[in-house]
Amino acid sequence: MFEIDPAFLATSEPLGELSLCHARLQADARYPWIVLIPRIAGARELEDLSAPDLAALMAEVVAAGRAVRAIGPPVEKLNVAALGNVTPQLHVHVVGRRAGDPAWPGPVWGHSLAEPYAADALATAVGRAKRGLGL
Amino acid sequence: MFEIDPAFLATSEPLGELSLCHARLQADARYPWIVLIPRIAGARELEDLSAPDLAALMAEVVAAGRAVRAIGPPVEKLNVAALGNVTPQLHVHVVGRRAGDPAWPGPVWGHSLAEPYAADALATAVGRAKRGLGL
Repeated sequence: MFEIDPAFLATSEPLGELSLCHARLQADARYPWIVLIPRIAGARELEDLSAPDLAALMAEVVAAGRAVRAIGPPVEKLNVAALGNVTPQLHVHVVGRRAGDPAWPGPVWGHSLAEPYAADALATAVGRAKRGLGL
Repeated sequence: MFEIDPAFLATSEPLGELSLCHARLQADARYPWIVLIPRIAGARELEDLSAPDLAALMAEVVAAGRAVRAIGPPVEKLNVAALGNVTPQLHVHVVGRRAGDPAWPGPVWGHSLAEPYAADALATAVGRAKRGLGL
């Protein structure tokens, strides 16, 4: 049975369910950042998905890129990554990067502690991300 | 017209042509690491690819994961990422990670200087990667 690793609950806010993935907003006000978790029990690697599920995942990654752009100021580059060294449940990060953001041009993972959203900014970001995902 | 960004030539060795991507071995003996560059002129983001090209890319990412595993000792986790903050031409990293490798569990990008392969180890890794990719 598919269950979300509790590690995601502490670091992100739920956005809703896409056709394949559970979508979450990473709770870091410095980066517009969506995490997609395919609802496939036991999946750890992209190779654990069927070809149709990989196609669905890519469509949802592209949609998450649009949603990330909808959250705030213009994004220079999307960073898309399936890492999982710390939390191996298969998940894909879609992060909007801006020249001059704290980790630029390096990767965001492990760079520095997240900066929490203020409550109203979080609600705004969640609302924009949901609309961007069609949720 | 598609041309490989010269930045890749300095840091990696050619493996050959897959149906969509030009494949290269990253010249860092610490990590089994393949870089896939879709031969699509002007592509910067995944969203710049058509749905069939995204499907081809995913099939080649899965194949590159197998090839990365063929290069050396067992890999604990694959890290797959399209970043491009420094070199924006669309490319996907497929990196084999091992607990205890220099950057573990953080990301490899920007962590530390590459460690060149010895000439014979490079030839071995290129040969294994090519066979793993069916090249």
